[in-house]
Amino acid sequence: MNSVGIVAEYNPFHNGHRFQFQSAKKLAQSDIAIAVMSGNFLQRGEPALVNKWTRTKMALQAGVDIVIELPYAFAVQNAEIFAYGAVSLLNAIGCRNICFGSESGDIHQFYETVQFINDHKDEYDTYIRKFIKQGISYPSALSSAFKELKPNGNIVDLTKPNNILGYHYMTAGEIINTSISFHTVKRKSAEHHDEYLSGSSITSATSIRKSIHFHSDFNEIREYVPNGTFIELHNYHDMFGQFHSWEQYWSLLQYKILSMTKEELEEIYDVSEGLENRLIKASQSSSSFEEFMTFIKTKRYTWTRLQRTCIHILTNTKKQTIQSLDKNPQYIRLLGMNERGREYVRTIKKELQVPLISKVSGFQNDMLELDLKASNIYALALSEPERSILLKQEFAQPPILYENKY
Amino acid sequence: MNSVGIVAEYNPFHNGHRFQFQSAKKLAQSDIAIAVMSGNFLQRGEPALVNKWTRTKMALQAGVDIVIELPYAFAVQNAEIFAYGAVSLLNAIGCRNICFGSESGDIHQFYETVQFINDHKDEYDTYIRKFIKQGISYPSALSSAFKELKPNGNIVDLTKPNNILGYHYMTAGEIINTSISFHTVKRKSAEHHDEYLSGSSITSATSIRKSIHFHSDFNEIREYVPNGTFIELHNYHDMFGQFHSWEQYWSLLQYKILSMTKEELEEIYDVSEGLENRLIKASQSSSSFEEFMTFIKTKRYTWTRLQRTCIHILTNTKKQTIQSLDKNPQYIRLLGMNERGREYVRTIKKELQVPLISKVSGFQNDMLELDLKASNIYALALSEPERSILLKQEFAQPPILYENKY
Repeated sequence: MNSVGIVAEYNPFHNGHRFQFQSAKKLAQSDIAIAVMSGNFLQRGEPALVNKWTRTKMALQAGVDIVIELPYAFAVQNAEIFAYGAVSLLNAIGCRNICFGSESGDIHQFYETVQFINDHKDEYDTYIRKFIKQGISYPSALSSAFKELKPNGNIVDLTKPNNILGYHYMTAGEIINTSISFHTVKRKSAEHHDEYLSGSSITSATSIRKSIHFHSDFNEIREYVPNGTFIELHNYHDMFGQFHSWEQYWSLLQYKILSMTKEELEEIYDVSEGLENRLIKASQSSSSFEEFMTFIKTKRYTWTRLQRTCIHILTNTKKQTIQSLDKNPQYIRLLGMNERGREYVRTIKKELQVPLISKVSGFQNDMLELDLKASNIYALALSEPERSILLKQEFAQPPILYENKY
Repeated sequence: MNSVGIVAEYNPFHNGHRFQFQSAKKLAQSDIAIAVMSGNFLQRGEPALVNKWTRTKMALQAGVDIVIELPYAFAVQNAEIFAYGAVSLLNAIGCRNICFGSESGDIHQFYETVQFINDHKDEYDTYIRKFIKQGISYPSALSSAFKELKPNGNIVDLTKPNNILGYHYMTAGEIINTSISFHTVKRKSAEHHDEYLSGSSITSATSIRKSIHFHSDFNEIREYVPNGTFIELHNYHDMFGQFHSWEQYWSLLQYKILSMTKEELEEIYDVSEGLENRLIKASQSSSSFEEFMTFIKTKRYTWTRLQRTCIHILTNTKKQTIQSLDKNPQYIRLLGMNERGREYVRTIKKELQVPLISKVSGFQNDMLELDLKASNIYALALSEPERSILLKQEFAQPPILYENKY
């Protein structure tokens, strides 16, 4: 069986995601689509709208064959580390193909671009350092450096967010040195950052979230998501009374910062020099997460980078903890699969170099500990008995088996 | 001017407190009553019903002449350290008399008892160690050891809570080696732990708090408190919409424990060996502070000891922080005074060995830092704009001057 890997967050799963994995299967001539998906906290430094199990169900119902979890230690990270973790896991579960969405849509352009950057590595890095010195964020420095190189020929525009991610997947593939083939699908219609619902039936997850958070209107999103997503969102809201957003964790974050010393803050992962004082001051004077973020935002860091820092403070994730972890995933956590996915797992199980885990109890691993702690904290947005229900799922739920029964 | 010192928490100030300081002035033939009062967190390991400024106003209106603050590092401590801090501060502000309430009411008994215990120190300590080994709490071990000594003659019953405190004040006096004279007033009517409002006009602070928390009925307490207390409680509730209780901090405590590693918990002051695991487990499964406490309670620790431990976790107060502090107070923080008190301060100011501080801004001291952090966290029970109002008071309020203007 030939599998194609997809890197995803499915927050929530929408029509664009369905289009992506269906295209991926065609492009890679694969019969199995495997999604490696962030858990309860995401790359943008946000809690997921609904937990990992519900998002797994959405994906399975739409036809994804296997969903595995991207551990916190890779998920809440910059694009480079995020991509490295995701590609490593897809490689570990036997994917010889990986497909990603991009603004470019032309995989040859990507291969040429990776080659081009490799050939101009020193020059590129010099430009990046120069721009960072000027006080702009790392992602901005990357794209500015890219512009300065003035590439000719068939080169991907690395100032676009999805192209950049694709670039990182492919360089991760080079580092891991596998025989993985990369494919790309041109993103349909909506730009990644579009905030308002457009007329077409594909729109970004961002605009869907805004619609849910600010208009509390499910019907508004109906045409942009598969029916499974629609139903799962409804069920989650019925069960837990809410969706997750940063504001629910604000009082905990504020308390956390106010109870820490400057030295303790410095020990937190991603808290870079000079940021501690601003964090402490902002936590004193802010009455919402939005206000807090506006206070700490500067040109030097992106909004998402600062949100990730806040997630690490919230989960008490230290520099030392992340540094002491293995660089490569030591397990593959299976969140769900359909019958085809199960058959695939049966086939490849014996060849796997890292264990495939179905239950977290009894499996000891520092990276997994981080995920469980993150889930404990994710659940604090809920009161009892909802919190316990959510936690029981996290700690006891076996992989979801989708048998067209929903 | 001759001053008498009183150790208090005034949570809230009631008729018994008024009786106590009036008797103290008579007994010690003093014209000035100085109360050293716990700040926002108390010896029982609880947040004070209302903040330190409101409790200061209550005391001043009832006739206390000066109120100074017992720092967090002494207040949220066992009886011995609490007593040492309080007596040190009263000594530092020039009190040559200290008066305390007791079940005994006979100061000669106390002097003989201190002498008796000194004479039987080794025997007493041997008994204490023996009882602690049997797994009972330290305070229980003290009173059991005392019973075993079978003292004859005019000896105080150290199985009573206020007698024990008095004993600790007097031994603190011995350690500090001052010429302080001790006096005691027999507690009127109510037992310290009485939980229900009795018919008399004196009842315990505990029963007043219960009445406020559970019946939300101010009128029920009217006959047990001076008018000033009654009005201040009303004002506080109008201003901040609530009184403070542990349950308001429960979600923060729960989050804090869930986000910490076992090793980090062990670093917290008063978290003794073996307690960490129970704390972690209880925080997972409890949905209220009451439930949490019931889960972690064993014979080995008293309820108040465990509550203090929880306050230290909440405020992130570490063993190392407490150990690195000076053993003796390095400043006297003035919370309020009346005209007589002001005159007294003017008289003694030049003779003071430690600075008397009126404003916290600009004064750097590790012990004071702890108090300010505690206040930051105390304020988190409130939402905005109330939280900012409370904090502004804490950080900018000069000592309250009571001029019969209320």
